[in-house]
Formats: sequence, C-alpha cells, structure tokens
Amino acid sequence: MQETLAEWRPAIDDAIAEILPRRVDSAYLESFFGEPTFEYDPEGIQRALADPIWDLLDRGGKRWRAVLFLVFVEAFGEDPEDYLPYATIPEILHNGTIIVDDVEDEAETRRSEPALHHRFGQDVALNAGNAMYFIPLKIITNNPADLPPDRRLSAYEMLMYELNRTHLGQGMDICWHNEREVRATREQYLEMCACKTGCLGRIVARLAAIVTGQSETVERHAAAYAETVAVAFQIGDDVLDVENSLGRAGDFGKAFGNDIREGKKTLLVLHAIEESDPADAERLADIVAAEENTDDEIADALRIIEESGGIEYARERARELSDEALAHVDALDIDSHAAEQLRSFAEFVVDRDV
Amino acid sequence: MQETLAEWRPAIDDAIAEILPRRVDSAYLESFFGEPTFEYDPEGIQRALADPIWDLLDRGGKRWRAVLFLVFVEAFGEDPEDYLPYATIPEILHNGTIIVDDVEDEAETRRSEPALHHRFGQDVALNAGNAMYFIPLKIITNNPADLPPDRRLSAYEMLMYELNRTHLGQGMDICWHNEREVRATREQYLEMCACKTGCLGRIVARLAAIVTGQSETVERHAAAYAETVAVAFQIGDDVLDVENSLGRAGDFGKAFGNDIREGKKTLLVLHAIEESDPADAERLADIVAAEENTDDEIADALRIIEESGGIEYARERARELSDEALAHVDALDIDSHAAEQLRSFAEFVVDRDV
Repeated sequence: MQETLAEWRPAIDDAIAEILPRRVDSAYLESFFGEPTFEYDPEGIQRALADPIWDLLDRGGKRWRAVLFLVFVEAFGEDPEDYLPYATIPEILHNGTIIVDDVEDEAETRRSEPALHHRFGQDVALNAGNAMYFIPLKIITNNPADLPPDRRLSAYEMLMYELNRTHLGQGMDICWHNEREVRATREQYLEMCACKTGCLGRIVARLAAIVTGQSETVERHAAAYAETVAVAFQIGDDVLDVENSLGRAGDFGKAFGNDIREGKKTLLVLHAIEESDPADAERLADIVAAEENTDDEIADALRIIEESGGIEYARERARELSDEALAHVDALDIDSHAAEQLRSFAEFVVDRDV
Repeated sequence: MQETLAEWRPAIDDAIAEILPRRVDSAYLESFFGEPTFEYDPEGIQRALADPIWDLLDRGGKRWRAVLFLVFVEAFGEDPEDYLPYATIPEILHNGTIIVDDVEDEAETRRSEPALHHRFGQDVALNAGNAMYFIPLKIITNNPADLPPDRRLSAYEMLMYELNRTHLGQGMDICWHNEREVRATREQYLEMCACKTGCLGRIVARLAAIVTGQSETVERHAAAYAETVAVAFQIGDDVLDVENSLGRAGDFGKAFGNDIREGKKTLLVLHAIEESDPADAERLADIVAAEENTDDEIADALRIIEESGGIEYARERARELSDEALAHVDALDIDSHAAEQLRSFAEFVVDRDV
C-alpha cells in the first residue's frame, strides 16, 4: 500500500495544480472561473487562495483519498490515468475541512506548523477552506473524462448528500464537546464518525463507482466499505490513545490521556459510563467534563475505562467493522489483485502504529 | 415592491422551515439527510444547526432574494407557488455567507444582536454557516417541481460556477483589506462586487431561468440584470457613506467616515487615489491604511475624495449600471407588469435611504 501511495503522489499533486496552480494568472482565472465582468486581481487571488492552499498541501499528507479513488477505478476495470482529475475532489475537500475544523477548534498547529489561520489570518484561512469546498466540485462541470450527463448529475447529487452529512457529523461532535453532560449513546458516537469522517470515504468510493458507471449495488458496497473502514479507523484511534496512556501513566513528564484532557466523549468513555457502577460513571463524566485535569484524575479515568472492559469492547466493535468492510469487498466482484489492494488498504488504515 | 416583499414573507419562511424545521426530530433527519448507519442525535443537531440558523433568520431580513426569484418565475410565465422551495436556495445561501463573513471579519453584532459566533460559539456558528451552503443544494436532488434531469444538472453546474466566484470576490476583498498598500484598480473593485455580492443575485436569476426552462439568452440577460443591480447597490452604499459623512463632519460626537475608518478601499477611494495629485493621493492612502484615525484625518480624507470628483464619478458609474440593468430587463421579452416589477426592484435596491 505504501508503495502505491508513494508512486501516485507526484501525479496527484500535478492534477491538483491543474485545478489550482501554485501561481495563478489571468489566463488561468478566466479558464477555470469564467470571464470576469470587469477585471480580476490575480495577485489578490494568489494571496487569498493559492498561497494558503499550497502552504497546507505542501506540508504533507499521503493523499490516500485520491489513491483509494484510483484503486477503485482500477478495480472497476478502467484506467486510473483517465480519471486523475476526479481523484483530486476528495483530497481538496478533505484539506478544506482541515482548515475549517482548525478554525472551529481554535487549533494552534497543523502538521507541525502553525494552523493556517495563525499563519494567514482567520479571514484568509476560512475563505480558502470554504473555497476548497467548491473548487473541486467544478471539476464535474469541466468534465475531463467526457462523462454523459446522467453520471455528472449523479455525481453532484451524491456529493450534496455526503457533504450535508459531514456537517451533521461535525455538528454532533461540536455539540457534545460543548456540553458538560454526557448525553450521546455509543450508536450516536459511531454515527458521528460515520458522518464526519465516513462521508469523505464514501465520496471517494461512490465517485469512483459513478464516473466509471457501476451499478447501484456496486456503488453501495464500495461506499459501505469506505465508511466502515473510516469508522473502524476512528475507534482504533480512540483505543490507541487509551492504550498508550495506560503504558505511559507512570512515566512522568509525558503527555497521556490526551482525549480525556480534551473532553472527548469517545466510544470507550461512553461504554465505561454506561457499564460502570454509578459512582465510577459519575466520576468519569466529571473528569471528562472538567476544563483542567490533574494526572491523578487522568489515571483514575483510565482505570475506570479499563475496568469497564472499554478497551475490549472498542476493539471488538472495530474488528466487527473490519470484517464488515472485508465482506463488502467480497461482494464487489472485482479481480483478486484489486480486492487484495482494498483489503490491504483497510489494514493500513486500521492497524497503523499511531 | 415593499408590498410584494411583505406578502411573500410568511410563505418563504414556511418553505425554509420545510427544508430545515425549527424543531428537528429523527423522522425529519431521516427524510432529509437519509437513513443513519447507526443512530442520529436529534437533540445535538437541534443545538448545532436548527437553533443557530433560526436565531439568525428570525432576526429579520426582507427575504428579497427569494422574492426576486419568485418575481422572475412569474415573469417567465410560471406559477411561483410551484417553485417555492427553490426560492429558499439563495436565501439560505445568503444567510450562510453572513455567518461565515461575520466570523472572518470578527464582527461583534449582526442585525442589532450579537453576531452568531458570539452567541453560539465560533465552532457552532461556523459549522451552521457552512451547512447552509449545502442544505439548500439538496433541494435540487429532492426535486420538488419534478424537473427533468437536464435542468437539475444545469442548476448544479450554475451553482458551482457562481459559488466559486463568490469565494474569489471574498478573497480579493479580504486580501485588499489586509494590505497596507492600495493596489486594486477601479475595475478590479467592481469585479470584487460582481463576484462577492453579484453572484448571489445571479443565482437568484439563473435559478429561476433554469427551473422554468428558459433559453440561454434569457438566462444571460436575467443574470446580468441581477449582477448589475448588485454592483450598483454596492456603489450606492459607498457613495452614501461619504455623503452622510460630509454632512456630519462638523457634527461632533457622531460617527462619520465609517468606510475610511474600516480601511475600505471603496470605488471613491480608488478614484481619488488615481485622480488626485501625488501628495493628496499619498495622504489618502495613508489615512485609509492607518489602524486608527483622528476626526481631522477623516475630514481630510473626505475632502480629498470630494475634490477628486469621486462622488460624481461613483454616481455616474452607478447610473450607467442601472441603465444597463434596465436594458437587460427590456431584452427579456416579458409582460409589462413583470418588467415593471423588475424595474422597481432595481430602484428599491439602488435608491434606498439607508
């Protein structure tokens, strides 16, 4: 998988630069955004869009959403090269959500550098992030692979469906984060993950199915695979944070219990609160809700989670979801090489070492 | 015009409430956003989306974008009632941009109440504002007037074209605002207006033309009318700020020269800088660029603008644009009542008394 990612990376960045060049001029602006009524200011758009967007893109990122799209296209029997511009859609969208999320969370850093709103100002960052929600959607109008109208309409309808749900997921996440009380159920937590991160995965899979003209059944299995992998990934992340913290709890000076300190109501926390005796449940809820935590409190929270069987429970849910994802791959009726790639992709995503 | 606005207002708000009810529940969420994979949290979505969005909508606004859409539909010989859900698209989009712009500008108030990010938190406000970019676009998928696929695809392509340009306009505006130097030309300033506010007007007009199946020529004239009115409106705003300020300049204690204090490089400022002698031009540029201004500096800036003929110049450009807008109405081949409505709409927008 790592090889496939590294191989495609330069071509993907070139494709992004076709959509939004590192250096914009009037000719580009007129061809991509249409004729001006009066006169564009290319220098202003350079500073407002191209500079911040490329600043973020050049910080890294494996472009795995674009690569997964290309893997799907190949699995569906088409030449990935022919659909390269479409591969940039989920990638640009994803990076747009990063900028906006960082403003929403008032994040300090992103990929070891100042968050975009700290480097470029909140106004520039936010407008650039929002522009990244619409710039990629124009690719479907530009129609690089000469798709028939019904596929273009399907692509737009799919994107509106999924992009609406990402805002539901983000809304639930923000709301729970701002509330002191712990109100969400475990199933609601998984829905939040399915919406917030799963939808971008679903866009990857469904877009590949739509542009190559697959059946609705194939599109549904591909989407379910991608969503399920994304949710499993999030659970894996939650488990890792607790496991690493338990390992480090005696190791003074190192950060541990980050999710608890940030007040995240993860699947493990929700499990522990539902399954522990009332005293422990209340204690855990208080620790998670507090603005600041002592190391002792964090250690106590981790103990309550561990004693509730939260780690085993979350691991089991992640395993179930992984099995589900693999079942969707089996249902896809694609050749064994492509199926292997999707399976290893799921493993890459779920079994990563932080 | 005022009557038409007041008449339609309740029906428009009902139509918005059909898209996003004041009180959300699982049944609504499933029907609008689709089946959950796990389980929605309606209470969370109430707090994250419905509450902030209706808080803003209930503060007022004339819903003129929705009404103009309905006026166009009637002008094109169709029953506005049949297309009411589509009328909400530009209205919801517009209110979404208000929330996002207020975060970008770090605004304190909106419609005499705290800006949404002050009342609900930046995270909730921003996510709600961004959700308002996508919720209305789903209406085209839901297809309330049973449109054929080619019109739905045209509607999506049109929306992507215009929503991309709004981010260009906002980008130019932000960029100029953040720069000390005055770099934009007058034509670039008008382009910024055409993109930033004109595109929402164009959405109103083009959407009405598309859903009722008008020719490309009709769509183009309708769009040009709406864009031109929007640009004329912005110039009118700029002129009013200077004129009111000149009237108040001796009147101590009252705010005057607001645009100059905010560092806005308006059409009048750009004209004065291009047309004044170098000493005055430099002085004006310095005053506009300064973080703080004394009343004397503001009075000086206003004098330079006035002496350069900036007011007459801007009035003349606005008048030219109004004439252009009326010429586009003439080209529309609609009945005299409808044409009269569009003409009075242009007057309502351009000749308002702040």
